[in-house]
Amino acid sequence: MTGTKRKKKNVLWSRMKNPHCEDLKQWGRRRLPVLEWALHYNLKEDLPPDTVSGIMLAVQQVTQGLAFAILSSVHPVFGLYGSLFPVITYAIFGMGRHVATGTFALTSLISANAVERLVPPSSQNQTAQSNTSVLGLSDFEMQRIGVAAAVSFLGGVIQVAMCVVQLGRATFLLTEPVISAMTTGAATHVVTSQVKYFLGIKMPYISGPLGFFYIYIYVFENIQSVQLEALLLSLVSIVVLVLVKELNERFKRKIKVILPIDLVLIIAASFACYYTNMENTYGLEVVGHIPKGIPSPQAPPMNVLSAVITEAFGVALVGYAASLALAQGSAKKFKYAVDDNQELLAHGLSNVISSFFFCIPSAAAMGRTAGLYSTGAKTQCVLASIIVVGLKGMLIQFRDLKKYWNVDKIDWGIWVSTYIFTICFAANVGLLFGVVCTVAIVIGRLSRAKTLSIKNMKEMEFKVKTEMDGETLQQVKIISINQPLVFLNAKKFHTDLMNILQKENASNQQLDDTSKCERNTLLISLSNGSSCNEEASQPHSNEECSLILDCSGLTFFDSSGVSMLVEVYMDCKSKNVDVFLAHCTASLVKAMKYCGNLDSEKPFFFKSVPAALSNIHSNKVRQNLSKLSDQSEV
Amino acid sequence: MTGTKRKKKNVLWSRMKNPHCEDLKQWGRRRLPVLEWALHYNLKEDLPPDTVSGIMLAVQQVTQGLAFAILSSVHPVFGLYGSLFPVITYAIFGMGRHVATGTFALTSLISANAVERLVPPSSQNQTAQSNTSVLGLSDFEMQRIGVAAAVSFLGGVIQVAMCVVQLGRATFLLTEPVISAMTTGAATHVVTSQVKYFLGIKMPYISGPLGFFYIYIYVFENIQSVQLEALLLSLVSIVVLVLVKELNERFKRKIKVILPIDLVLIIAASFACYYTNMENTYGLEVVGHIPKGIPSPQAPPMNVLSAVITEAFGVALVGYAASLALAQGSAKKFKYAVDDNQELLAHGLSNVISSFFFCIPSAAAMGRTAGLYSTGAKTQCVLASIIVVGLKGMLIQFRDLKKYWNVDKIDWGIWVSTYIFTICFAANVGLLFGVVCTVAIVIGRLSRAKTLSIKNMKEMEFKVKTEMDGETLQQVKIISINQPLVFLNAKKFHTDLMNILQKENASNQQLDDTSKCERNTLLISLSNGSSCNEEASQPHSNEECSLILDCSGLTFFDSSGVSMLVEVYMDCKSKNVDVFLAHCTASLVKAMKYCGNLDSEKPFFFKSVPAALSNIHSNKVRQNLSKLSDQSEV
Repeated sequence: MTGTKRKKKNVLWSRMKNPHCEDLKQWGRRRLPVLEWALHYNLKEDLPPDTVSGIMLAVQQVTQGLAFAILSSVHPVFGLYGSLFPVITYAIFGMGRHVATGTFALTSLISANAVERLVPPSSQNQTAQSNTSVLGLSDFEMQRIGVAAAVSFLGGVIQVAMCVVQLGRATFLLTEPVISAMTTGAATHVVTSQVKYFLGIKMPYISGPLGFFYIYIYVFENIQSVQLEALLLSLVSIVVLVLVKELNERFKRKIKVILPIDLVLIIAASFACYYTNMENTYGLEVVGHIPKGIPSPQAPPMNVLSAVITEAFGVALVGYAASLALAQGSAKKFKYAVDDNQELLAHGLSNVISSFFFCIPSAAAMGRTAGLYSTGAKTQCVLASIIVVGLKGMLIQFRDLKKYWNVDKIDWGIWVSTYIFTICFAANVGLLFGVVCTVAIVIGRLSRAKTLSIKNMKEMEFKVKTEMDGETLQQVKIISINQPLVFLNAKKFHTDLMNILQKENASNQQLDDTSKCERNTLLISLSNGSSCNEEASQPHSNEECSLILDCSGLTFFDSSGVSMLVEVYMDCKSKNVDVFLAHCTASLVKAMKYCGNLDSEKPFFFKSVPAALSNIHSNKVRQNLSKLSDQSEV
Repeated sequence: MTGTKRKKKNVLWSRMKNPHCEDLKQWGRRRLPVLEWALHYNLKEDLPPDTVSGIMLAVQQVTQGLAFAILSSVHPVFGLYGSLFPVITYAIFGMGRHVATGTFALTSLISANAVERLVPPSSQNQTAQSNTSVLGLSDFEMQRIGVAAAVSFLGGVIQVAMCVVQLGRATFLLTEPVISAMTTGAATHVVTSQVKYFLGIKMPYISGPLGFFYIYIYVFENIQSVQLEALLLSLVSIVVLVLVKELNERFKRKIKVILPIDLVLIIAASFACYYTNMENTYGLEVVGHIPKGIPSPQAPPMNVLSAVITEAFGVALVGYAASLALAQGSAKKFKYAVDDNQELLAHGLSNVISSFFFCIPSAAAMGRTAGLYSTGAKTQCVLASIIVVGLKGMLIQFRDLKKYWNVDKIDWGIWVSTYIFTICFAANVGLLFGVVCTVAIVIGRLSRAKTLSIKNMKEMEFKVKTEMDGETLQQVKIISINQPLVFLNAKKFHTDLMNILQKENASNQQLDDTSKCERNTLLISLSNGSSCNEEASQPHSNEECSLILDCSGLTFFDSSGVSMLVEVYMDCKSKNVDVFLAHCTASLVKAMKYCGNLDSEKPFFFKSVPAALSNIHSNKVRQNLSKLSDQSEV
C-alpha cells in the first residue's frame, strides 16, 4: 500500500498539469487491476504455462462445482455455472494472482441453510413437476437455485458496501487463529453434512444451534440402516484419493505429471453406475443427468432477500475471511501486495454478477490443487469423498494448535473457543465470537501492560554522570513512558509511577539492580541484610527530588490520559517532587496546559531529556549560590 | 486496590498459622465495608456533623423521591420508600463515602418505560377501583409499582451477577466522555418528559426510538392548549430555584446556613393548592394525598421479569455507570479507594433488597446538594421544576465539550455521537454505542501508532562512540520496539522497520537530523542539494550492516507478532543485514525459536544492547583478523 502511495506521489509530482485526469487514471488502475497486468502480459513466455495450469484448474473447478452444488442443496448443473462466472469477474477486479475463485465448501454450506429452510424437500411434491422452465429443470430446482442466487446477490452487495465504507482496513481484526479455527470448524461441519452419503443413510436436513450434535445423534440412532455398499465405496474412494494425492505430492518433481485421480475415480464410478444400473440394483443415491447449455441471465428473486439476510452476512464475512487469508498467504509467498478493500470489491462483484447467472455463492477456495473433469452420472458418495478429501487442507489446521500452544497460550485459547463456537453454532457466529474475543483480550492485556520503563534511566545515567556531579544525579529520576496514554492504561500508569517513586525515595537507588544494591550497602550497613528488599519504604519527603518524564514513546493520548498526567503532576508537587516533561508533542503541551491550568506555573516542558537535566542543574547551582550568599550575609 | 493487596500480603505474612480464617476475615471486611468504618467510628467527633448533613440529605431525598416517583410513573409514596431502603443497604455494602444513593432521575425514566408499556393508563378504567390493597391504593397503582419493583429486582440481580463474574474490572471501558455524554443525554430526556407539566398539556406517554422528537412535535402541534397558569408557575419556580441556589452557593461560607428554597417553594405551593382548590379552579394537575406507614415486604411479581429485561439491563448499566463516576470522583477528591466490584455488589443488593419494599430502581444521584421535606398535596409543575433544576449538574456537562475540543478532538467526537445516540434512542443504547465506539477508535489508533523509536539509538550512539571505532558504529542500527507486538500493529511494525532500514541504507546516516545531513554533504557533494531527501534511495546491498532490536518495550506479544518478528529476521537476512535481539523475555525467545526453527542459527538473543554490540564488535575484529591473515598468506 505504501509502495503504491509513493509511486502515486511521484507520478503526481511529475505531471502536475492535469492532476484530475491522472487521479482518475490511478483510481481506475487501482480498482481494475486487470488493466495493470493485461497490458504487461507476455504472450510468448507466460501463455503456455498459464494454459496448462488453467486447464488443470478448470477441470478441477468443474468437479468441485458439481460436488459443492450438491452441498448447497441445488441441482449440480448450477455448480458448473458457479465455476465460470465468478472466475471471470475475479480476474478483472481481483489482485490475488494465485487465488482460485469459484464454488467454495463453506459458503455452499451456509447457503444450503437458506435453501433448505425456504424450499424444503417436502415442497417438491406440492409443486407440479412441470419441466417447462429454462433449463428443462423442475420448478422446485429453479426455486432452490433462486434462493441460493439471492444469498449470493445479497452477500455480494454486503461485500461491496463494506468496500465502499473502507471496512477492508479493519481486516487486521481477522487474526490467523480466528480464521484458522473458523475454517477448521466449518470444514468439520461440511464433513458432518457428508456423513449421510458415506453411510448411505436417508436423513432429514438438520441445522440450527447444536445441529452438529443432533446429526451424529441421528446417525447413531439409525446405525442399523447403514448401506454397506455406500460405506465400502466411500472408504475405498477416500483411501485411493488420499494415497494417490500423497504420492502425487511426494513425486511431483520427478514425474512432472500429476495423476488425475479424481477424474479416474469419477469416470470409474460413472461407468459402474451406467453398467450396473446402481440406482436400481443397490439403491445408492445417484445424481442423474446434467443438462447442456448456458442459461440466459435472470435476476435473482428479490422477494426472498429479507429472509436470507443472516445467510448473506455469513457468506459475505466467511467468504471474505477465508479468501483474504488465502490471497495474503500467496501475496506473502510471491512478494506482491494485496489491497484488502479491492479484494472485498472483487469478491462482492463476483457474487453480485454471477448471481444473475444462477450461481451459488463463491469465494476463493483453499483445497484446489489438481482436479478433474467429468460429466454424466456419478454416485453421490464418490462426490462426498471428493469433498471431504478436498477439505484436507483445512482439517489439517488442527496442527496449528501445537504451534499456538508453544507460541502464545492465549491464541491457543482463542483457537479452541472459536472452534467450539463454530461447531456448536455456525461459521459466522464463530467468526464474530473470535473477533470480539480477540479484541477483548488485547484490550485487557493492554490495560495491564507495563507503561513505564526505568531501563532508559540507567542508560541515561551513564551519559549524565560525565556531565553532572553524582550528588545532583541521585535526586533526578528519568522515566520514559513507552505506551500511548489512554483510558485503558491511565490508572496503571499512575500506580506504576507512584510505585517507582516510592521505591526510589526509599533509599534513593534501590532498583532491581544488584550492583546498585552493593553500592549502597555501605550507606545502609546499619540495617540488616535484606535492606534491598521491600522494607524501610518510608519516603524521605523532606528531601527534594526531580522527575523527568520522557514522553517520546507516548505515541497518542486521550482526555483520560491527559488528566492522569495532570494528576501525576499535582501529586508529585504535593510530595515535593519536581516534574519535568521531555519530548512532548505540541498537542500534548496544549492539552495539558488547558486541562491543568498550568500557564502560571514555571516552565516544565522541555525539548529533550538533556535540556531538562541542564535546567535542573542550573536551578540547583542557583539555589546553592543563594544559600551560600544567605550564609555569607548572616 | 494495590494498597489493599499489599496490606493483605503483609497480614498474611505475619499470621501464617491460620491462613484460612484470616482469608475469610479479609474477604468479609472487603465485602462488608461497614465493618471497617463502623468499628472506627468516632461517636463524639463525627456524629454531630454527620447528623446535620444526614438530616439535610434525608429531607432532600424525600422531596426528590416524590418527584422521581412521578417521573417513574408510580404513586409518589413509593418514592419515599425508595429514599429509605437503598440508602441503608448501600451504607452496609458501599465504599463511596460521599455518595448519596436513592431514587435517581435516569433510572426512574428507564423504569417508567416498562411501567407505561406493561400497565398503560388505559388499563386504569378496566380494573375495578377497589381500594382493598395494602396501602389503601388502587390495584392499578399496585400493578404499576409491581412492574417498577420487578425492574429494580432484575436490574439488581444483573448487577450482582456482574460483580460475581468480576465485570467491575472492565469499568475502565466506561470513559469520562461516554458517561458525561450519556448522563447529559439522559438528563435531556428527563427534561423533555417534564415539558408537559411545565406547559400543563395533557399528553400521551411517548417513548421508543426518536420518541424525543415526537414529544416536541406533539407539543408544537398542541401549542394552543398550553395552560398559562402552569407555564407561569413553572417559570417562577425555576427562576426562584436557580437564583436562590446560586446565591446559596455563592454565600455558603459567609452565612453557613443554606436557605431550603425547595421546601419553601413546595410549602407555598401546597398552601396555595389547599386554599385555592387549584385542582378544581384552574385544572392544574395535583398529586393528591400521600398515605402513611411502611408496607410489609412483598416479593416483586416474577411473571413480568422476562418482559422487563431490556429496562433491567438499562437500569443496571446506566445506574452503575453514573454511580461509579460519582463514587470515583469523590474517592479522587478525598483520597480513598473504591473497589469497582464492591460498588456493583452494593448497588445490586440495594436494588434487590429494596425491590421487596415497593421501591423504584435506585442509584447514586448527582444532583443532591441540599433539599427539603414536605408531605401533603403539591402541584406537579412545581415538582417538575424541582426535577429539572436538580438536573442542572448534569445538563451543565455541556461545558465538557469545550474541554474535550481543546484536549482531544476524538473524545469530543465520541461525546457528541454518544449524546446524539442517547437522544435518539435511549440511555442504554447511547452507553453501549459510546463504549463500542471508544474501543473501536483506540484499536484503530493503536494499529496506526508508531511502533519503533530511533531516538534511543541516537542516545546509545553517544555511549557507544567512546567504546567502538566510528567505522564499525556506522553500520550498526539500534532500534527499540516500544509497543506490544500484536495483530493490531504487526504489519505496521514491519513497514516501519523496512522504511527505517531503507532510509538508513540509502546514505548510511540520513535521518531527520540536519547535522548528520551536513556531515554527509562532503561525501555526496557530487549530487544536487536535495541529497538529504528521498532520492538516491537504493540500498547498498553489498555492504554488510547489523541491526539491534531492543525489545525491552515489547511488553507482550501474540502469534501474529512473533511470526512478524521471524519474518523481519528472514527479510533482513535476505538483505544481508544481521539482526540481534536484546532484552527479550524467556517466552519470546521460546516462541521465536519454535516459530522460525531458529535453533540451528547462530545466537542472536542477547541480554542487553551493549552485550549485542560487543558481540558485533568481536565478530568484526575476528573477520578483520582473518582477512589480514588471508592477505598475509597470499
